[in-house]
Amino acid sequence: MNTPSVKEYLIDLQNRIVQGLEEVDGKTFRLDQWGRPEGGGGMSRVIEAGNVFERGGVNFSHVYGSGLPASATAARPELAGRSFEAMGVSLVLHPRNPYAPTIHMNVRFFEALKEGADPVWWFGGGMDLTPYYGYEADAIHFHQTCKDSLQPFGDDCYPRLKKWCDEYFYLKHRKEPRGVGGIFFDDWNQPDFDTCFSLTKSVGDHFLTAYQPILELRKDTSYSERERDFQAYRRGRYVEFNLVWDRGTLFGLQTGGRTESILMSLPPIVKWRYDWKPEAGSEEDKLYTDFLIGKDWV
Amino acid sequence: MNTPSVKEYLIDLQNRIVQGLEEVDGKTFRLDQWGRPEGGGGMSRVIEAGNVFERGGVNFSHVYGSGLPASATAARPELAGRSFEAMGVSLVLHPRNPYAPTIHMNVRFFEALKEGADPVWWFGGGMDLTPYYGYEADAIHFHQTCKDSLQPFGDDCYPRLKKWCDEYFYLKHRKEPRGVGGIFFDDWNQPDFDTCFSLTKSVGDHFLTAYQPILELRKDTSYSERERDFQAYRRGRYVEFNLVWDRGTLFGLQTGGRTESILMSLPPIVKWRYDWKPEAGSEEDKLYTDFLIGKDWV
Repeated sequence: MNTPSVKEYLIDLQNRIVQGLEEVDGKTFRLDQWGRPEGGGGMSRVIEAGNVFERGGVNFSHVYGSGLPASATAARPELAGRSFEAMGVSLVLHPRNPYAPTIHMNVRFFEALKEGADPVWWFGGGMDLTPYYGYEADAIHFHQTCKDSLQPFGDDCYPRLKKWCDEYFYLKHRKEPRGVGGIFFDDWNQPDFDTCFSLTKSVGDHFLTAYQPILELRKDTSYSERERDFQAYRRGRYVEFNLVWDRGTLFGLQTGGRTESILMSLPPIVKWRYDWKPEAGSEEDKLYTDFLIGKDWV
Repeated sequence: MNTPSVKEYLIDLQNRIVQGLEEVDGKTFRLDQWGRPEGGGGMSRVIEAGNVFERGGVNFSHVYGSGLPASATAARPELAGRSFEAMGVSLVLHPRNPYAPTIHMNVRFFEALKEGADPVWWFGGGMDLTPYYGYEADAIHFHQTCKDSLQPFGDDCYPRLKKWCDEYFYLKHRKEPRGVGGIFFDDWNQPDFDTCFSLTKSVGDHFLTAYQPILELRKDTSYSERERDFQAYRRGRYVEFNLVWDRGTLFGLQTGGRTESILMSLPPIVKWRYDWKPEAGSEEDKLYTDFLIGKDWV
């Protein structure tokens, strides 16, 4: 294992991504450095009221502590309570334009330590796309880039991580996928550290390729109050997923993480209304019938 | 035990409360009846875009099933997995006027059943007030009414349930109380069924007395975009509490409850912004310094 090189990679990735996004937006991301009394800290790069992004953040964090919460690992509950070290880059971006999709990407590395035992380590990560108005071309481009990022790791890698993403980013209480999916992996430690690290790097390195062209294509589409309203309504689902189901969010809140950095994932303006459904056949309805269906896009 | 009489009480309470609130608002609450494939169902009374209430609901539900989730009882985790019966009235109301506080009230009855064992039952409930702009008179009136409702059950009852409320309606990840508190009780089965039922009834019966005068006093206060904006920001805390910490919400979502009825508690328009704090000494700041402090109001 080479923990310092993971940290170095993550910090460089954060910088590259922020630079790429600043080129699209034209506004600079604010930098907040923070420390955590229990150990570790992070750097949050935040944008609000940008030209393209209404709200978003690209966060690096490196925390350690005693008492790994159960949310850290679904696969090995026996590790709960161990001391741990966790580092990662996590981003969510909410464009203002309702035709431009919300994006999430995360790469992370964990170590669970116990005196007298070998350290247990694993990588995790992925990215998924959440459109308000769907475009087949965008979903295909996004999934093709995800597939490209995993191609060096075997033909079965993308289908496996695509399925994992569909299962993870699913709102059980709505029986609804969060968006058009992408890839997701967790508890990843086979066949060896170097291969797992390479895969994680490849996912991180493909983020801008996956998202930037979609953003360029949609960010200036003209829209009216109707689309903004639907966007605000659908953003409610994003809040519900992140606060009720997302293990990453729960891990952060349970380990005394920095609340403002964790909740950067929440959209700037959100609406809830009772038992609302789009008119059958409308553009809004097409999101449900043609995109939120766990489809194989490539 | 007399389960039918609990149900009868709850349905009557829902009717009385809706009637009282309709008198204030002038608009009728919509009625939705729903069934649950696993057993039971409910009646949701919902208001949106009312004259006073921007969004709110007064829900009755009566559900049963196998596999009591852990969220149902903090005190007796050994009951998880039993078959169960649960019924209650639960309400949240979000007035449009930022000077009028959001209110929550709930009364509930649980039975956990196991073949060959005596049924285990308990009551739970409470009410708590969440102002955006605080008024000492409102907090005192609200707590005094809570105290009145518990007076027949002993001098130590109100202080105990007031403290329980402060502890329960607390956002750990913000280190912040949800509002000015009220009363809360759970796993309540001493000294006997009749006394517990009486206490629960007394809490339910005091709801309109506790909330209506505050609402009448504040609902027509003039306000500007500034107060609406602060209200939308603070409503974010309500969402965070309900989706991350509230056992009632988790119980509903985990038992396949009706999502639209459960999430009636979420406000109509909500804003999140990064690391925002009110200006020191402002009216908005006073909420934090003078009201969100777990104070003894009576």
